[in-house]
Parts: sequence; C-alpha cells; structure tokens
Amino acid sequence: MFERVALIGIGLIGSSISHATRRKGLAKEIVGSARTKSTLDTALKLGLIGKGYASAAEAVQGADLVILSVPVGACGPLAAEIAPHLKAGAILTDVGSVKAAVVRDMAPHVPKGVHFVPGHPIAGTEQSGPEAGFAELFDGRWTILTPEPQTDAAAVEKLKDYWTALGSKVEIMSPQHHDMVLGITSHLPHLIAFNIVNTAEHLERVTDKEVIKFSAGGFRDFTRIAASDPTMWRDVFLNNKEAVMEMLRRFSDDLAELKRAIEADDGDTLFRRFADARAIRRGIIAAGQDTPAPDFGRAHGASPGPTDEESGKSK
Amino acid sequence: MFERVALIGIGLIGSSISHATRRKGLAKEIVGSARTKSTLDTALKLGLIGKGYASAAEAVQGADLVILSVPVGACGPLAAEIAPHLKAGAILTDVGSVKAAVVRDMAPHVPKGVHFVPGHPIAGTEQSGPEAGFAELFDGRWTILTPEPQTDAAAVEKLKDYWTALGSKVEIMSPQHHDMVLGITSHLPHLIAFNIVNTAEHLERVTDKEVIKFSAGGFRDFTRIAASDPTMWRDVFLNNKEAVMEMLRRFSDDLAELKRAIEADDGDTLFRRFADARAIRRGIIAAGQDTPAPDFGRAHGASPGPTDEESGKSK
Repeated sequence: MFERVALIGIGLIGSSISHATRRKGLAKEIVGSARTKSTLDTALKLGLIGKGYASAAEAVQGADLVILSVPVGACGPLAAEIAPHLKAGAILTDVGSVKAAVVRDMAPHVPKGVHFVPGHPIAGTEQSGPEAGFAELFDGRWTILTPEPQTDAAAVEKLKDYWTALGSKVEIMSPQHHDMVLGITSHLPHLIAFNIVNTAEHLERVTDKEVIKFSAGGFRDFTRIAASDPTMWRDVFLNNKEAVMEMLRRFSDDLAELKRAIEADDGDTLFRRFADARAIRRGIIAAGQDTPAPDFGRAHGASPGPTDEESGKSK
Repeated sequence: MFERVALIGIGLIGSSISHATRRKGLAKEIVGSARTKSTLDTALKLGLIGKGYASAAEAVQGADLVILSVPVGACGPLAAEIAPHLKAGAILTDVGSVKAAVVRDMAPHVPKGVHFVPGHPIAGTEQSGPEAGFAELFDGRWTILTPEPQTDAAAVEKLKDYWTALGSKVEIMSPQHHDMVLGITSHLPHLIAFNIVNTAEHLERVTDKEVIKFSAGGFRDFTRIAASDPTMWRDVFLNNKEAVMEMLRRFSDDLAELKRAIEADDGDTLFRRFADARAIRRGIIAAGQDTPAPDFGRAHGASPGPTDEESGKSK
C-alpha cells in the first residue's frame, strides 16, 4: 500500500501502527524517529522500524506516508522541522486527540503537493511507550479523519483504506466537530478521572492506603484512565480549551442538580437519572465498542496477593 | 460452619454468597426469600437456595445466620419484620454499602440474644439479579464489618471467618469511618459516573450515536459503573448524605483548580496533577485490587461487530 512509512514518535500508538501495518503487509518499509534515543533503540530492537533516525527531518525523507504520533503540542514544531524534507505527493497525517489546534499549528507549514490529512484513532490503553503497542489495538474501533474540503480526495481515500486495513472503521468530520465530540467522550472523562484521584490523595480522614484497599467499590476504574500519559493529556487540555470548558460547565450544572436532589431527599429524581444512564451502556455494547462481559471481563480471584502489611491480618 | 443460612434478597450479592458458600460447603442448608416471586423462582431453579419462602419472616426461622442483601433503604423495615422470628444466638448481618444509616435503622429492632454484625463486601459488577452472581466475586476483595464495641466477640469472629472462607479479606472499623471511606472509593465515583452519562445524553451538538461510537476514548469506562442498579444507588445517596456531600465539595474545589489551570494555560500544574495520579494506580495493582493487564484485560478485536447502519460505511 505504501513504499515507505515514516513514524515520527513511537509510543503506544506509533508502535501499534507498526504492528498492525506489518500484520497486513501494508508497507514495504517502516522507518522512524523518536524524541529520545532510548525509545529509538527499543523500537529498533523490537523491529517496529527497519531504520531509525536521530531527527524527524531525516526520517521523513523519501516517505510516501508520514505519521506524527506525538503529544499535540509537539505537532506544530515538528511540522516546521520536517516540511522542507517531505516528498512531493506524500500523505502527512497525525494521531492527535485534538484536531482544530493541530490543523492551526501544522497546516501553515505543509508544502504544496503534500497531502495533509489529520487523523485520530479512538483507541488506546493506559500504557505508554514503544513496548505498549499491539496489532489489535485498532480492531473494531473508529478513526476520525478531518481533512479540509479542498484536500485531494484520492489521498483522503488512501488514508481511509489504510486505517481500515489497520482494523479500524473510519469517519470523516470537521476538526471543530471532532473536538466537541471528543470533549465529551474522552477529554472530560479524563479530566474527571484525574481530578477524583487527586481528591482521594489529599483527604485527611481517609488514608491513601484505605483508598487503595477499598478501591474495588468503583474508584479503581477511574485510576486506569488517570494513569494515562501526563504529557499527552496536558497538551490535550491546553489545545481543546473551549470544548472542554463547555462540557465541564454542563457537567457541573448537572452535578449541582444531583446534589440538590440528594439534599432534598428527592429519591425519584435520583432513581430516574440513574436508570437513564443504563441505556447508553447497552448502546455501547450493541455497537461493539465495549465488552458485554461483566466488570470488563476482569479476572476474578486471579490477581496477585497483597503484601502481608496490606492484608490487615493483624487486626 | 452454619446449620442454616437465610438469604433475604437474592440479587448479585445474595446469589454470589450462595455460590461461594456452596463452593466451600460452609452451610448445611441455604434458604431464602426475595421481594419478587420471579427472583425467588429463579433462585430455586438455579439451586441458590434449597427452600424459598414468600416472606422474610418465614425464611429466617431457625437460621443461625441471616444475611440481608437488599437496598439499604429496605433494611430497617425488613429488620422490623423478621425481628420476632429470629432464633436466639443467631448472627444477623447485611451487605449494605452504607453502614451508619443501616445501624440506625436496624439496631433498634434486633432482639436480645441475636448478634447484629453489619457488613459490606467491597465487590460487585454492574449486573443485577440472581443470575448475575458467581462464586469468585469476593476472592481477594475486602469485606468491612462494623460491629458495635459491645457486640459478642465470638459472633464477630465467626462472621469474619465466614467471609474469609467466602474468599474475602476482612477489616473491622466504625460505621462512620466506613461511610467516609466508601464515600470516596465508591459513592462519589458512582455519582460522577451517573452524572457524566446524563450530561452526554443531553447535549445538542453531539448526538447519542456519536457518544456511543466514539466512547472508547474513555467515556465507556464510566458507563459500566453507571449501569449499576438504580434502586441500590438511590438508597446509598439518600443514606450517606453527609460523607457524599463532603467528598463532592472537595472534588468540586479540586476541579475548579484544574479548570483555572486550563484557563490560565498553566501546563506545569496540569502535568503535575496528572503525573501524581499515576502513583495510586500502581498501589492498587500492587495490593491485588485490580488487574495489571492493560485496559482491564479487555478483549481486543473480539467484540461483536456493529450494525450496518452504525458502521458509517456509506460515508
């Protein structure tokens, strides 16, 4: 499908793209660069790339597909760096969780004759780095592409076919709509997860040890999301401010209403709100976007035992 | 261990107690009652109970262990109903997610000579009903008991041994402290999860279908918790108001701070807060309270396919 794919950034997403590309034989050659030498060495050792380059400028030379898999704040500077070295006719894309800001930062640098098609696979885990990737990450998930209307249709189609071959389904929308949709389906959930973990850590009347021990009551679910890469998420919030603020405002208004219902002993409102929330889970499972297995299919009784100190046996 | 265990309420928790009790042969006989005839019939059909009774009053007769597994709001009325029928020397316990209110509602009814030891296994799934239970639910999880200081020590010890045999670890604390700890590790997380799902459902600029399609960005995790039993959760919030309000106040204060950091482009504060949140996840995994597998060990690429209408293929 491509002669030479250049991966700029080889973390969870970059390495998963490599695995999925090789699974289907979609590129003759995969090359890449990474911010740190240690990531580049690991990527070479794991066979994620055939050749590694110290700079992105070198890595993109001769590539007909260039994929930036870096925190969104790094996209603009990288676009400036690689621009003079991009091959005519190449497709340039990214995987950033924010799209309007990435277009704002990258588009001005893209040379004529290079097809810039911003993208975002809605897939991931809480792990980071080149060792975290796997070929199945995109299977059954959605990738959103946000090309400008004037972008070469053949280039958009080719990138769409590539993501489909990587296992993903593809939808096309505007960068602005993408940022609004992801504001509610991803950015606000992460902000809330980070926040409740911070809240739990700073209580005086409940110790961190108690939070950990009794986390199976629900809290532990939030800690998975809150374990995501802090650099990536810092950049998301700095670059999708407006949509995040709008979602946060609505969330806070709704929360104030639930709070009033609790204070007023209004059990009917609480019941109605809680019952409403069940339907969307059924929709997500029916759409193949989550497992139908209870508790995410978590292993039961198979987790490693606690340390003696934590077991509370001496009580 | 017990001659006759009476399960009052046979949903997810009651049925799991039956499975785990039979797994280890901890009772000669398990009997029970349920609010609806259909639950009782299912429990009999599944062999969860040997005998089923139309009323709790009948079910507890002759039982040396009586376990209430019902929404916490139902505990008081049930205690009043069964009190005259409890056997002398019996242990009476519950599994409610709130403890001070349960003690307030149940204790006045408990006859002399019956040992009331309130309890709460910190375990569950988003599923409900007698078919949702399984023997491994409590394995490696914690059960909190909140007896009054004057409670018969042998009865407390026996119930502790029973929960240990069911697979759980046991900790003893005051009802008030329990309610504070669970306020942060369970009640606030559920309130937030219910709330974000409600928020997502009422947006004008993002459709429910888009929320569902792109939920793998984080939102889907919240929907699992938000799919929990609405009656159970209504009763939790009505009965643990103070602790929930305190946790909610702190959560909102912290969220306001994150909001200010985003508005002020304060990337350092965001990074620090996000990085801090990673540590507690490591603690939870080290303590055996969650799986170390990425993404909760969710199956990748194995979920059922979406419908044609949802696949966006026609785009």
